[in-house]
Amino acid sequence: MPHISITNGLPGISGLMAQRPDTAAPLNQLAETLLRSPLSLSRGERELIAAYTSELNETEFCSGSHSAFAAAQLDGGAELVKAVLHGLDEAPVTPRLRALLRIAGAVRGPVRALPPELVAEAREAGADDAQIHDTVLIAAAFCLYNRYVTCLDTELPTDPGYYEEGAERIVTRGYAPAAR
Amino acid sequence: MPHISITNGLPGISGLMAQRPDTAAPLNQLAETLLRSPLSLSRGERELIAAYTSELNETEFCSGSHSAFAAAQLDGGAELVKAVLHGLDEAPVTPRLRALLRIAGAVRGPVRALPPELVAEAREAGADDAQIHDTVLIAAAFCLYNRYVTCLDTELPTDPGYYEEGAERIVTRGYAPAAR
Repeated sequence: MPHISITNGLPGISGLMAQRPDTAAPLNQLAETLLRSPLSLSRGERELIAAYTSELNETEFCSGSHSAFAAAQLDGGAELVKAVLHGLDEAPVTPRLRALLRIAGAVRGPVRALPPELVAEAREAGADDAQIHDTVLIAAAFCLYNRYVTCLDTELPTDPGYYEEGAERIVTRGYAPAAR
Repeated sequence: MPHISITNGLPGISGLMAQRPDTAAPLNQLAETLLRSPLSLSRGERELIAAYTSELNETEFCSGSHSAFAAAQLDGGAELVKAVLHGLDEAPVTPRLRALLRIAGAVRGPVRALPPELVAEAREAGADDAQIHDTVLIAAAFCLYNRYVTCLDTELPTDPGYYEEGAERIVTRGYAPAAR
């Protein structure tokens, strides 16, 4: 049961956002900027970074949501997302994306400067400053979203199609409508 | 030296934000909402939660900045902020604020549901749902800001008056102007 009263019956961050539109607005605007506005990485790659960070942070609601959003926007679909979440070293992604996901994994750990060898690996695989910046910021943002959802002990969805339905909405309309 | 090229010479998050106004805008809007717009806690209390979280996360730039912003907006000033950062159990704050700061300390740790006894302690001391929510969200947000600043290995300010000058600007103008 959540640590605060959620009266709308919605799971995860959706319940918190419906309850608190004042704080939901900038949280949605941030998600829209990081995951959908033009940045250095594709929308699918960015959702994969969000899903991978959430999986390592063991926040099932965010991992399930962003896995579905990534699957809907990546050529490899749900199979590719599952492969990354369950074994990054062997997953069929480019060396560049693998190196960026390793950076995301380090960001979500203890708060410290990235090990230089992780950054060097990403650069050798073709990542530039913008891609490294955007990866760090997305992974850091999910250190916020994951804690918001998990620390307040929000509910998981009971509908088995919940995440896929969310994906359809996010892919077509984005995060920002909720923020306006 | 930062992991990505920062060409504006500014320290900490200021350098990152000047370099990337696209992502700075929603980050500033979130800070404005969480730390300055009308919420359940005073501006000084909210900046104190930000400073305390940043101190535990060992992000000197954010701890220094938000300590100065808290000191400028709390009756106890810099002495009170220092007392909280260096020994919360003995610091001269109300039981309610102490309990909320303990919640912030738990949020910034491993990603897991808050221990029920921490929430119960806050409620017994007079905190309501909104104060618990806002504390969790502010501490979670600093898990983002702290990682952004620390993981990219940004520089510290060299000017000894840097944080106090920042406080004057934040108290009078807020975070949002940079976002517009």
